[in-house]
Amino acid sequence: MISRVLVADLPRHVGERVRIAGWVHRRRQLKSVTFVVVRDRSGLGQVVVAGSGGPPEETVIEVEGLVTANPRAPGGFEVTEPSVGLLSEPAEPPPFDLYRPSLRASLPTVLDNAALALRHPRLKEVFTIAAASVAGFRSALDGLGFTETQTPKIVSSATESGVNVFGIDYFGERAFLAQSPQFYKQALVGVFERVYEVGPVFRAEPHDTARHLAQYTSLDAELGFVEDHHDVMTVLREAVAGMAAAVPASGVVVPEEIPEIHFADAQDLIARLSGEDPRGEPDLAPAHERLLSDWALRTHGSEFLFVTGYPMAKRPFYTHPDPERPAYSNSFDLLFRGLELVTGGQRLHRYADYVTALAVRGESAEPYRDYLDVFAHGMPPHGGFALGLERWTARLLGLPNVRQATLFPRDLHRLAP
Amino acid sequence: MISRVLVADLPRHVGERVRIAGWVHRRRQLKSVTFVVVRDRSGLGQVVVAGSGGPPEETVIEVEGLVTANPRAPGGFEVTEPSVGLLSEPAEPPPFDLYRPSLRASLPTVLDNAALALRHPRLKEVFTIAAASVAGFRSALDGLGFTETQTPKIVSSATESGVNVFGIDYFGERAFLAQSPQFYKQALVGVFERVYEVGPVFRAEPHDTARHLAQYTSLDAELGFVEDHHDVMTVLREAVAGMAAAVPASGVVVPEEIPEIHFADAQDLIARLSGEDPRGEPDLAPAHERLLSDWALRTHGSEFLFVTGYPMAKRPFYTHPDPERPAYSNSFDLLFRGLELVTGGQRLHRYADYVTALAVRGESAEPYRDYLDVFAHGMPPHGGFALGLERWTARLLGLPNVRQATLFPRDLHRLAP
Repeated sequence: MISRVLVADLPRHVGERVRIAGWVHRRRQLKSVTFVVVRDRSGLGQVVVAGSGGPPEETVIEVEGLVTANPRAPGGFEVTEPSVGLLSEPAEPPPFDLYRPSLRASLPTVLDNAALALRHPRLKEVFTIAAASVAGFRSALDGLGFTETQTPKIVSSATESGVNVFGIDYFGERAFLAQSPQFYKQALVGVFERVYEVGPVFRAEPHDTARHLAQYTSLDAELGFVEDHHDVMTVLREAVAGMAAAVPASGVVVPEEIPEIHFADAQDLIARLSGEDPRGEPDLAPAHERLLSDWALRTHGSEFLFVTGYPMAKRPFYTHPDPERPAYSNSFDLLFRGLELVTGGQRLHRYADYVTALAVRGESAEPYRDYLDVFAHGMPPHGGFALGLERWTARLLGLPNVRQATLFPRDLHRLAP
Repeated sequence: MISRVLVADLPRHVGERVRIAGWVHRRRQLKSVTFVVVRDRSGLGQVVVAGSGGPPEETVIEVEGLVTANPRAPGGFEVTEPSVGLLSEPAEPPPFDLYRPSLRASLPTVLDNAALALRHPRLKEVFTIAAASVAGFRSALDGLGFTETQTPKIVSSATESGVNVFGIDYFGERAFLAQSPQFYKQALVGVFERVYEVGPVFRAEPHDTARHLAQYTSLDAELGFVEDHHDVMTVLREAVAGMAAAVPASGVVVPEEIPEIHFADAQDLIARLSGEDPRGEPDLAPAHERLLSDWALRTHGSEFLFVTGYPMAKRPFYTHPDPERPAYSNSFDLLFRGLELVTGGQRLHRYADYVTALAVRGESAEPYRDYLDVFAHGMPPHGGFALGLERWTARLLGLPNVRQATLFPRDLHRLAP
């Protein structure tokens, strides 16, 4: 049997007999011929079958035939004089037409039938872009001396806040799904200095919003021997630039220096721009994040903006305070097109500082004993960040709901498929 | 402040004043000088400090000093005329000496203190090799047109057997941790044709052995448009060759053609070699896997051996039978140095075949409804495999226990750190 050719490679085989294989994307019957558009992983190719009939859409077929140039065929080439064989049973029709330029179905219908809906070239494209982005992230960090790690997703105590965690029965013991690899990546700075992890994190998020998922893919990094959070931001800039470079068609430009505004100055700016006065609030409202993003685009020509120095009150206990203004922190968010894309900062690295930080918050150090121990054994100043892959992809492509950037989303109401 | 130099780069700075930073790996006090060996992510470097004293082992320091060639120094270079600053508190002593050539501690002590034990250069090295292996796996499959995916780890029904699953309370519903991405990767063949995933899988493994973990990292791949399982084996060979090539120091050679023996012939061979008669058994005993591996090395010079055609009785219901001998399957295991490293095979791809396969086993199709639906909508012949990363690393490095190739293992008795 002649070996298979992808439809995107048909132009290189004009005048040859080839074998292609894929799904019947579209079947158009004219009086004396049927045009069968075959979809494979490389794209779409047309087969001209004499007579009418032929297998229904989504049936998997293989076709041997002659590659023929035809300016009127999609792409300029088609397969003629075909012999068609079925590789699957004749397919049952999907609940929507996959051959239309865009999928005409509601988001719940798409998600309920994800394995079929994702076959639509536009939906599929979202996830080849996500895959390329992750490759760009890894490549950037590999180039900066980072080591990739895999850490436990089943943990004995809640990672950060103790709320929104999923409980597990672990051989009769109570355990939890990890909300982040935070404590592990910090401990591993003591081993590798620079680590990253690409993996699932779990939030029992009780709110049903367009931006929250019960499981998402977190791109986590942590590095030691930093001066402060600005060294972390420099690495993050490289990581995001690597992600954007891996998706050149997106046209996203990551500035060499991403503009930066301190939280206090951001609040002043919001007051000036909006007439509202957010001062005294310990965090930014989503509307204010959009306002700041617009401002950065207008005045700096940048779709990215670092907001630094969030108040300690709203950051986790392991956050390093700003030594000059201890009510503010050495932390940052990275806004991208109006939305928080990344959270990060410098962490505490001295054991005594952890004990104090927990005491100030009225928390017991006991649940964190395993975590804290490593800081008594020599940890360098360090920091890191976490970036949600689905959020990145959704923003990059202008998808309004993060579920559209998730193959099989999990949320308050969705546990299948 | 002068920028930091890694200790491995000291030879390039002889005669210059540099800054290095890292952990006090070893402190050796002589009469009038103290040798401080600094460990950073690149290796070890010696600093010569006048007088005695200095910070204890594992304290994080930075040192500015003059790079001086000294044939008697480790590596031939050292830092003299130093000024030493502390980046951490003076470290509490770890429960073992990290500066010894090998770590003198029992496995439980190592695992209880993993964040510290992993600082030992030999233990750390295991995980840089694991990271390189994963990079090699991805690179090989990227080159073959595969797309990387992320799939749900929380599922509504048990993936394969219904046993050994961890239960979760999912917003008041009963859910499970995924034992494998099996069903998702198959469905995604319908989208991308060729997919892989690197991610955690979960087994509530009730046995306490040297080769089982409750969470491990599965390297999963699945591809469509195969003739049979041999096309899957060809891709697997490339993936494993990519992993071995990423760790050249291992010296592992993956033959262009990995030798292959059918299960039935393997049983005959075992009978001949061992005097035992395993015929009638539906699987291979670990001792017999070792016997076959030894045989492959002796007669084919290969540390790898494919055993194909396992009896259908011992393979999951989605396994494709051998059309010529339907009691056997189009499946395989890949043995590496005496141990099963990979399991894979061709899967059923027709809806009707799934319904029949489940009926034959007396199982209801209802729990698999979401999974089966996709096969009614056109799926090509396909197959795939799963490779346990920790098992690979352990075998590659001759580590007797898979926990030694896991940063923070999870098992029947271990939920922390």
